[in-house]
Amino acid sequence: MKRTISALVKNRPRVLARVAGLFARRGFNIESLAVSTTQDPRISRMTIAVDEDPETLIQVCKQLAKLHDVQTVLDHTSDAVVERELCLVKLSIPRERRSEVLQIAQIFRGDVVDIGNGTLVLQTVGDSGKIDAFVNNLQEFGIQELVRTGKVVLARGVQKT
Amino acid sequence: MKRTISALVKNRPRVLARVAGLFARRGFNIESLAVSTTQDPRISRMTIAVDEDPETLIQVCKQLAKLHDVQTVLDHTSDAVVERELCLVKLSIPRERRSEVLQIAQIFRGDVVDIGNGTLVLQTVGDSGKIDAFVNNLQEFGIQELVRTGKVVLARGVQKT
Repeated sequence: MKRTISALVKNRPRVLARVAGLFARRGFNIESLAVSTTQDPRISRMTIAVDEDPETLIQVCKQLAKLHDVQTVLDHTSDAVVERELCLVKLSIPRERRSEVLQIAQIFRGDVVDIGNGTLVLQTVGDSGKIDAFVNNLQEFGIQELVRTGKVVLARGVQKT
Repeated sequence: MKRTISALVKNRPRVLARVAGLFARRGFNIESLAVSTTQDPRISRMTIAVDEDPETLIQVCKQLAKLHDVQTVLDHTSDAVVERELCLVKLSIPRERRSEVLQIAQIFRGDVVDIGNGTLVLQTVGDSGKIDAFVNNLQEFGIQELVRTGKVVLARGVQKT
């Protein structure tokens, strides 16, 4: 089952290695990971998407919380959340098929962020399901390069941390 | 100096730990990291932002490229790139100050993605400088929670991979 964890950690060189090491030792594959600073530059926020059963996830969260420099671990399984992901896609597209691509971009509220040398770079934002559908619809045009940030989430309403 | 590296890696449990371990051993702090799958579910793309001098970065790229399951490493230092980052910010905001916040959101082309219990969640997308400015402008309203994806980049025009 797909689940998302957020961890607030100190912004120090070895924290990521400790977290990644924990997941590697247990053999968990991280589906996506986004790490960046928060409003406090001393604190980074990691958003980790995994595909694990609930019991395993509880164990992972407990072990994560014990790691040095990890301050808070949030399991978003039972939260109502705002979930978003950003995706950039580069297509190699002949001019005569450009309008087809632009229609798909419009449907997914995507933006063209670069045109040049027969290439087109599109950007869209949404939950992971929307990004999956966007990418699936563009596959037939021949995707040259694609990058997704991985999802980030915030619990709706009341403060969790 | 701030620099960005992309790495195409096999989507396997231990790759992240190897990459994070390499950075930890050399004492490099990763400013932000975004990891997710590409159009090929067997391949993940990591975007790593670091603050290092050019010589050090060349060494890091060489060592990264030697790691098991790392297929391609791209140093974007001399590329023209599309750089984007996504940010979600939760504010605890009294109703009478809401219009001030909405003005800032409008200036930064941000969207309100949740309202409830005296809280407001804003979303914006842009390069890291824009996100920094957005966050700085919201600091005075009291940020409850903030999550950034870390930057992702694609080289403009011709295909690099």
